[in-house]
Amino acid sequence: MVRIGIFGATGYTGYELVKLLNSHAQAELVFATSRQNAGQRLSELYPCPYDLTLVAPEEAALDEVDVAFLCLPHGESMPVVQEVRAAGVKAIDLSADFRLRDVAVYESWYKKTHVAPDLLSQAVFGLTEVYRAQVAETNLLAKPGCYPTGVLLSLYPLVHHLRSPRVIVDAKSGVSGAGRKLSLTTHFVEVNEDFKPYSVVRAHRHLSEMEQELHAWGAKEARVTFSPHLLPVDRGILSTVYVTMEPGWSVARLLEAFRAQYAGEPFIHILPAGQMASLAHVVHTNRCAISVAEAGEDDFIVVSAIDNLLKGASGQALQNMNLMFGLDETMGLPV
Amino acid sequence: MVRIGIFGATGYTGYELVKLLNSHAQAELVFATSRQNAGQRLSELYPCPYDLTLVAPEEAALDEVDVAFLCLPHGESMPVVQEVRAAGVKAIDLSADFRLRDVAVYESWYKKTHVAPDLLSQAVFGLTEVYRAQVAETNLLAKPGCYPTGVLLSLYPLVHHLRSPRVIVDAKSGVSGAGRKLSLTTHFVEVNEDFKPYSVVRAHRHLSEMEQELHAWGAKEARVTFSPHLLPVDRGILSTVYVTMEPGWSVARLLEAFRAQYAGEPFIHILPAGQMASLAHVVHTNRCAISVAEAGEDDFIVVSAIDNLLKGASGQALQNMNLMFGLDETMGLPV
Amino acid sequence: MVRIGIFGATGYTGYELVKLLNSHAQAELVFATSRQNAGQRLSELYPCPYDLTLVAPEEAALDEVDVAFLCLPHGESMPVVQEVRAAGVKAIDLSADFRLRDVAVYESWYKKTHVAPDLLSQAVFGLTEVYRAQVAETNLLAKPGCYPTGVLLSLYPLVHHLRSPRVIVDAKSGVSGAGRKLSLTTHFVEVNEDFKPYSVVRAHRHLSEMEQELHAWGAKEARVTFSPHLLPVDRGILSTVYVTMEPGWSVARLLEAFRAQYAGEPFIHILPAGQMASLAHVVHTNRCAISVAEAGEDDFIVVSAIDNLLKGASGQALQNMNLMFGLDETMGLPV
Amino acid sequence: MVRIGIFGATGYTGYELVKLLNSHAQAELVFATSRQNAGQRLSELYPCPYDLTLVAPEEAALDEVDVAFLCLPHGESMPVVQEVRAAGVKAIDLSADFRLRDVAVYESWYKKTHVAPDLLSQAVFGLTEVYRAQVAETNLLAKPGCYPTGVLLSLYPLVHHLRSPRVIVDAKSGVSGAGRKLSLTTHFVEVNEDFKPYSVVRAHRHLSEMEQELHAWGAKEARVTFSPHLLPVDRGILSTVYVTMEPGWSVARLLEAFRAQYAGEPFIHILPAGQMASLAHVVHTNRCAISVAEAGEDDFIVVSAIDNLLKGASGQALQNMNLMFGLDETMGLPV
Repeated sequence: MVRIGIFGATGYTGYELVKLLNSHAQAELVFATSRQNAGQRLSELYPCPYDLTLVAPEEAALDEVDVAFLCLPHGESMPVVQEVRAAGVKAIDLSADFRLRDVAVYESWYKKTHVAPDLLSQAVFGLTEVYRAQVAETNLLAKPGCYPTGVLLSLYPLVHHLRSPRVIVDAKSGVSGAGRKLSLTTHFVEVNEDFKPYSVVRAHRHLSEMEQELHAWGAKEARVTFSPHLLPVDRGILSTVYVTMEPGWSVARLLEAFRAQYAGEPFIHILPAGQMASLAHVVHTNRCAISVAEAGEDDFIVVSAIDNLLKGASGQALQNMNLMFGLDETMGLPV
Repeated sequence: MVRIGIFGATGYTGYELVKLLNSHAQAELVFATSRQNAGQRLSELYPCPYDLTLVAPEEAALDEVDVAFLCLPHGESMPVVQEVRAAGVKAIDLSADFRLRDVAVYESWYKKTHVAPDLLSQAVFGLTEVYRAQVAETNLLAKPGCYPTGVLLSLYPLVHHLRSPRVIVDAKSGVSGAGRKLSLTTHFVEVNEDFKPYSVVRAHRHLSEMEQELHAWGAKEARVTFSPHLLPVDRGILSTVYVTMEPGWSVARLLEAFRAQYAGEPFIHILPAGQMASLAHVVHTNRCAISVAEAGEDDFIVVSAIDNLLKGASGQALQNMNLMFGLDETMGLPV
Repeated sequence: MVRIGIFGATGYTGYELVKLLNSHAQAELVFATSRQNAGQRLSELYPCPYDLTLVAPEEAALDEVDVAFLCLPHGESMPVVQEVRAAGVKAIDLSADFRLRDVAVYESWYKKTHVAPDLLSQAVFGLTEVYRAQVAETNLLAKPGCYPTGVLLSLYPLVHHLRSPRVIVDAKSGVSGAGRKLSLTTHFVEVNEDFKPYSVVRAHRHLSEMEQELHAWGAKEARVTFSPHLLPVDRGILSTVYVTMEPGWSVARLLEAFRAQYAGEPFIHILPAGQMASLAHVVHTNRCAISVAEAGEDDFIVVSAIDNLLKGASGQALQNMNLMFGLDETMGLPV
Repeated sequence: MVRIGIFGATGYTGYELVKLLNSHAQAELVFATSRQNAGQRLSELYPCPYDLTLVAPEEAALDEVDVAFLCLPHGESMPVVQEVRAAGVKAIDLSADFRLRDVAVYESWYKKTHVAPDLLSQAVFGLTEVYRAQVAETNLLAKPGCYPTGVLLSLYPLVHHLRSPRVIVDAKSGVSGAGRKLSLTTHFVEVNEDFKPYSVVRAHRHLSEMEQELHAWGAKEARVTFSPHLLPVDRGILSTVYVTMEPGWSVARLLEAFRAQYAGEPFIHILPAGQMASLAHVVHTNRCAISVAEAGEDDFIVVSAIDNLLKGASGQALQNMNLMFGLDETMGLPV
């Protein structure tokens, strides 16, 4: 049994994790914290039957767990990860605090001083299908952002064959990606039957993660234009990615490259030519669906989809936990 | 031209009114107030092209208007109505502050002291199709609540023929009925794909309005069971009302009673036998759709639908304004 | 391993069953039929990665399975159940063909001649929490209708204490309840942002199931008024049930009766006083949530919710299969 | 009074037109045809109070009207336009039959022989803000496609300043754009909570209209990549357009170009810098909202939004009719 603690269990990713762990054969949830709702049961906060009582972060029994998941806001995660690691407990961080390897890049995008730069060098970027070996060995896992997860998985096999350094990512996310915090931008009447872009102008922080990885993989000049849009649905991210390939590529060759790269991957679903990925392919599962269409000359469109709360957050976090503890990678995850 | 002021223009009913007045041939909007957003333009608060600048309530030019609409929260409306009336300006109050004729009933349901009981006796309950003559004469109009509007219109012609005093109202409302204030209960992810009752247990304040009118109309023993539910849609209220009639009634006779009562009414749509009212019959219009089905023995089901922001709020308020100023009752209203 | 065949795998209940079986530890799906899509893979019909190839009903390998699920339209199920039973294979019928014990009642509501009245007497009405012992022994299980499942579970403990024989069921269902067949009534634009009653006038067939069971449980005079409404959501049924109890009942006593009746039930979730059931309590689970509110005098409102495709259809069917094969009742089911 | 006939009044664009004409001060609807529903009243087909009786196309009283709107499928419109024009009646065609000036292009994209090539040369492409003078004079107006309307309006002032001939259009449309015909792709359960691309691979017919106009306006090399997606909403199209400008452009300069081009246009809403267009800016109005963001170097993102049934179809058609009959261009249209 893996003994588990969750910091920040009342946001959407924390709650999703509780639900996953509830049917995981080798997981024992020891504690779940909430600063605001300590003392309450989860069933008072969510329409669920879980009578789990939340504790204040100070009461987190770190000596009784093997791993802690941090479902905290960016910036708040850093000091808690320090404590967790100081207690010899493995950490899986769902915030952005350990995703960007360069402290300066982090501080520039997140407008915060990084308090644990030493830990950064130990952190593994948990894009499981790319960094599986490192994931298995790490004690500090940085779960990739929701947008970067789907986009990077749909670019990884192509990255050495891009003719143009420019990659356009027109992405659309369901509302749970914005979290449970109250805001007019997530008020039902303001979202329902509407659709809109937000954070354009090279302004969304996930851009930095995408470019970090593309550069790390060898596409040193890659420049991403990233336009996120808000979809009036609960869950799911669909990214329409426009790339220009070197001469000689076709849909068939692209699909072949994807199939070769992801052969045997339990959570990657490469669609056949002529079918395009949709949210319905992935919501309520831990899968990433990938599809390709041609756009004339050497231009192609790669469309990927994930469930932002599963493969984009708690599902991928649990997938990594399974690896970190030598368990079957799919345990407790909806395939 | 009717010169108009709006108090509280940034909530959903205020904004709906601005949109209606914008295409009303005889309306001139002189001022629109907002305590929180004074100095801003409406186009900064809503996705619209209206460059109307909001003013603080203290700057409302009461001497330049003929009528003021009060789109304020319950309790906050009373003192402003006093000022408006003191300035000799007609008042149309969309809050509940002048709907209940009995001060004690108001104070018991709304947990507030009524500061203007003298004005209460002058107020007309603006259910236009029932109180048209009084509406035309009044200087202080209390717009009925959204739920009572549809329910009362669907009971008015039947009220002297109920065998059982018990009336069950199973009502379902879109989310705009809850207003624009931030709350977890209107967070997109908490509402979308969900459906639930709320305020059961004789707890919703609109119950008092319904019983007040039924009693006033002669059904002295009428007792309403009122179960409102929250629908994952923007607009509209559908009420399924269960009544037991005196012996001898049928769907045909009920429809005949409705047609006779509402003959010539521009905003009442009585459906033929076999068709049932739906939100689609009424949203984005000022109509109330009414339909009837039998439920065995002397039991019947009356289903009515309105758009809660139009016939249930700003539309009915404007309909009343038209009457109060001798204009065509339908002016500026979507039929 | 239980070897399984599905007749009619391409409708919503068939597809839901395939998904459930896919993660069931003791299930082996041997065949899945489709008359219209024989030869195609499921991944061509649904956004999923299942490469299961559908076969024509004539090619169903009955000699290789232990149980067959029938996800066929009413009327089409009867002859196939005959074949299945003739082959010595257990049958779990999701249609209405074996739910009504009285052939005349069936023929009157479904306007069909029953071709297998002899098998009717062997069929068990698979409301698991009520008929568990019989379910475990049967070879022919009739899965209850989606509406009756939630309504009957919320009436079972009360049935001997109703003062009035009249029970009003105001029910609201998501669109998947209408099936995948094309119809203007399920066209997105006709349903989205709309809400409406349908099949009122004692016309919905599920009424007969409800009254059959209430009468069987001793409420011989019970008369159900049943008003189903169509909700603009994918899944879920919420039923608001109005009952009048004998003197002396309270919300607390009602909840106590529910807790006593359903103690230890893995899929029944009785909410505490003050909380009301919502679709969010149950969708994507096999649970039934039950809650109670008072409505004045001896009147009470019982609100129940289920996922129509899980506890209302394929989930309950699988729960029964587990019992019929001596497996853990919750195996493969989302709790 | 303009006397009007509608061919094909029971689809979404026909019904929208009936609703608009109903509140148009100078319109008299003389006939409305339907092949399938001749003899029925519109209130039997739509949730509305219009008792308009539909007639068979053969009974259309062409001699009693001044103008006919054709809301017919592509290909079916051509012969009816011939009849209409032969009767000396003005024609406003909402189909694609007269949009493409080159018969060969039409026949290649629509896989049909054009039966009235002579009339093609008389047809005016009714993008009102671009071709206003020609619209006022024509007797045969081809209403632009819904996608091209918003995209072309957002490219018109930029077209001589594009550095790269490549224009990427990532467009998202509500479901009413697919019409009322039954199809699994518009089944509520298949669309709701989903989102997906369709017709990629240079396959959507509207591509030809976009390139035709860009080429006509002088961008002879312009090449459009067009990816339409299906949004789970009733109405609205939002297009995110990626362009590369000549050196020296900025968001401010782009907005200035838009404001200069569209000064005084009643239906064009240019948003200020920092605000982005959304469906909520335009649905239920005849407006086109346009906004701009920078994407690094000389790359920009132009986002436009329209209501596909109004500015994208029946609204723009009526706007053109107003011009063709010398009426106020905004008459009967929601601003």
